[in-house]
Amino acid sequence: MLESLKQEVLEANLALPKHGLVTFTWGNVSGIDRLQGLVVIKPSGVSYEEMRADQLVVVDLQGNVVEGDLRPSSDTPTHLALYRVFTQIGGIVHTHSPWATSWAQAGREIPALGTTQGDYFYGSIPCTRPMTKEEIEGEYELETGHVIIETFDNRDPMTIPGVLVNQHAPFAWGKHADDAVHNAVVLEEVAKMAYRSLMLNPGLESMDQHLLDKHFLRKHGAGAYYGQVKKEEAK
Amino acid sequence: MLESLKQEVLEANLALPKHGLVTFTWGNVSGIDRLQGLVVIKPSGVSYEEMRADQLVVVDLQGNVVEGDLRPSSDTPTHLALYRVFTQIGGIVHTHSPWATSWAQAGREIPALGTTQGDYFYGSIPCTRPMTKEEIEGEYELETGHVIIETFDNRDPMTIPGVLVNQHAPFAWGKHADDAVHNAVVLEEVAKMAYRSLMLNPGLESMDQHLLDKHFLRKHGAGAYYGQVKKEEAK
Amino acid sequence: MLESLKQEVLEANLALPKHGLVTFTWGNVSGIDRLQGLVVIKPSGVSYEEMRADQLVVVDLQGNVVEGDLRPSSDTPTHLALYRVFTQIGGIVHTHSPWATSWAQAGREIPALGTTQGDYFYGSIPCTRPMTKEEIEGEYELETGHVIIETFDNRDPMTIPGVLVNQHAPFAWGKHADDAVHNAVVLEEVAKMAYRSLMLNPGLESMDQHLLDKHFLRKHGAGAYYGQVKKEEAK
Amino acid sequence: MLESLKQEVLEANLALPKHGLVTFTWGNVSGIDRLQGLVVIKPSGVSYEEMRADQLVVVDLQGNVVEGDLRPSSDTPTHLALYRVFTQIGGIVHTHSPWATSWAQAGREIPALGTTQGDYFYGSIPCTRPMTKEEIEGEYELETGHVIIETFDNRDPMTIPGVLVNQHAPFAWGKHADDAVHNAVVLEEVAKMAYRSLMLNPGLESMDQHLLDKHFLRKHGAGAYYGQVKKEEAK
Repeated sequence: MLESLKQEVLEANLALPKHGLVTFTWGNVSGIDRLQGLVVIKPSGVSYEEMRADQLVVVDLQGNVVEGDLRPSSDTPTHLALYRVFTQIGGIVHTHSPWATSWAQAGREIPALGTTQGDYFYGSIPCTRPMTKEEIEGEYELETGHVIIETFDNRDPMTIPGVLVNQHAPFAWGKHADDAVHNAVVLEEVAKMAYRSLMLNPGLESMDQHLLDKHFLRKHGAGAYYGQVKKEEAK
Repeated sequence: MLESLKQEVLEANLALPKHGLVTFTWGNVSGIDRLQGLVVIKPSGVSYEEMRADQLVVVDLQGNVVEGDLRPSSDTPTHLALYRVFTQIGGIVHTHSPWATSWAQAGREIPALGTTQGDYFYGSIPCTRPMTKEEIEGEYELETGHVIIETFDNRDPMTIPGVLVNQHAPFAWGKHADDAVHNAVVLEEVAKMAYRSLMLNPGLESMDQHLLDKHFLRKHGAGAYYGQVKKEEAK
Repeated sequence: MLESLKQEVLEANLALPKHGLVTFTWGNVSGIDRLQGLVVIKPSGVSYEEMRADQLVVVDLQGNVVEGDLRPSSDTPTHLALYRVFTQIGGIVHTHSPWATSWAQAGREIPALGTTQGDYFYGSIPCTRPMTKEEIEGEYELETGHVIIETFDNRDPMTIPGVLVNQHAPFAWGKHADDAVHNAVVLEEVAKMAYRSLMLNPGLESMDQHLLDKHFLRKHGAGAYYGQVKKEEAK
Repeated sequence: MLESLKQEVLEANLALPKHGLVTFTWGNVSGIDRLQGLVVIKPSGVSYEEMRADQLVVVDLQGNVVEGDLRPSSDTPTHLALYRVFTQIGGIVHTHSPWATSWAQAGREIPALGTTQGDYFYGSIPCTRPMTKEEIEGEYELETGHVIIETFDNRDPMTIPGVLVNQHAPFAWGKHADDAVHNAVVLEEVAKMAYRSLMLNPGLESMDQHLLDKHFLRKHGAGAYYGQVKKEEAK
């Protein structure tokens, strides 16, 4: 079942090491079929070198395994929580990519300092509050989803397609699995550049709002004029 | 038409990922035929892996598409503005290369701290002023060209072949497309080294003027004695 | 003799350059057969490109060469000291991997700042005290082992599988040679991320204890629920 | 003539890009035949991809071209000055390798902070004083050699096989061309690690003298016990 989605999620998982986002098996990608309400996700602990489409696990939005012989990623409850509430997203990526994780460990949001970030994120990339002892000792992976959702109470996950989980690492998402990987790559790249910009100019704050508006809106929404027809990643 | 220039511009574009200057499609190179007043530029949103010479777009200096089925890079008006005013340049490169972009986001010029920069740039690599709300909301890409040109009111683009656009990223240029890529690589390399030198010695200012004179002038101009015959990049 | 262990130790040594942990021959891996009390270790000064299983040296726990035509690594006495006292470990790695070595040179322990470290190290990665003149001028490599062991007087080497030797470089270990390499890779990765986190937030201290407990214990010990069956590196 | 030395110098030049020490043609290696007093050096401005042994230039110690159709590296007078005074060295490398160059631009010597440096350099790696206007406007490349020699008035070039030229870049040397490249790689690696150690611990000074003695002397001189027989790079 869901062979096409499995292939897409497989390729998205394999793109993680290709883009330098993962060490060992420290990352996972999922994709959702919204019509059927089914999620395809990486199995836990399978190396990227050996991963095959038929090893991917299909779960429903309540976490019941619908197909697959292997255990789904231990981060599955986080993915499902996001799919349930961020109803427009079609793919989710979790990695411990080093630059974004360094910001997550520092407990700092990544300010929007230039147009590279502005082309994909409509503002700073937030960092969640630290999770409480109760959350951590309870249904930890589910609560990780909840603290991300809480962080987006006053943000739109479609215009800020990523987050830093405090003392942990980033999650990114998008319209589909491949788009989520794309945003994870951008997140890592802007995390790197923002670090260096701040070292060069420690007092730096956010970029000018009208420049952010210009860049985000020329690539997203009704007035977009980037690429051929509707390709979003063009330049 | 312009098959030879197209081949040169294609190869220059393909050199960007080879030198680690671009992520995804975040960069573009153009070249100009000064006799005909025609510019060959990368199409918008085509990946480097798939790019072919016949996909490159030919535009005149007013931006009219003379040949090509695809839309030219959205940065085309910036390229054209520079070609119209910097009449000696033959190629232009725009990237979001990470080190140079970090300086652009910090709003700082890159001081000339050593002979690596002095071999190619006759002084610091300037950073434009932030663009105004009116410029950004108007013909943004054209105004980007104008703010670069304004920055060179008292500088010679042939001796300072690159610039940082504030809160955005670098542009570099040269006598032809390949030379522009060469200068973009140098810009990235000196951006990296100047960052580290400043971290090691925060009070550092420009290198000695006579050392800068020596290095720039032994590679450029009448008294050059570098390389075989007139190869500029020799050492 | 010990052909299977030799093959494992050979592959573990070859994994060092593959993971970017060594320059030239700056590293070595050993593995132990606990039943026979024999250690297989890299020969001194043989390049990774040319290394063969039959060049590995077999020594007993007192350092007597039992098999092999080449001299064992000059760090052999350090390995043996650790095997004698840390009786549960099966493999040891020493490298001068750049990020971990930078911390060792700085004389600082690597604090546990996030879950990446918490998944493998149950707390900070300690740095030994500087060795005394007497220790250095005496049986230096043996004393290096002793100062590591002293550092673990109040730590469990099975939950903190690595250390920084002051002004020198890291050692890591594990249940077998491959596991030790795995921990050496993690050590390098968390050294890199902790550096950057501290630059972003200089006042940063250790991560929350309950988050550390959660991550370490869900991958190690009786309550582990990571991966398929018992694979430890899963995610 | 000197075919064997040419082959060695060719391979040493080709090792520079392999070790990531050069961008474009920013580097050169030479080797000397002490019996004949002849130096083989890279031609100016030839790319590493195309370099052949028969393009290397043979010069005598006064700089007269003895064989070769191409101009020797513009840095030849610096190499020759060092060969004339540092009579035990057999090979010289000049690069603009990024970490070492960052220190040179900062005008700071690289302190010996750990055993990686101590294994090859018996103390800090010095930085020359800035050259005077007269030196720069005179026989610049020759004077570059002189300022290096002046820096070694109270140092032994055989125990400190490298230097940073102020506001410029490093030179390294060794018993032969390959050994010089080896030391250039070490210089770049310790430049990187010392930078990071100082960021982690800004007050850091030199490593303990007895540890430096131990490491340098166990690999060099009469009491050496590293590697197989006399291989110096063993570990």
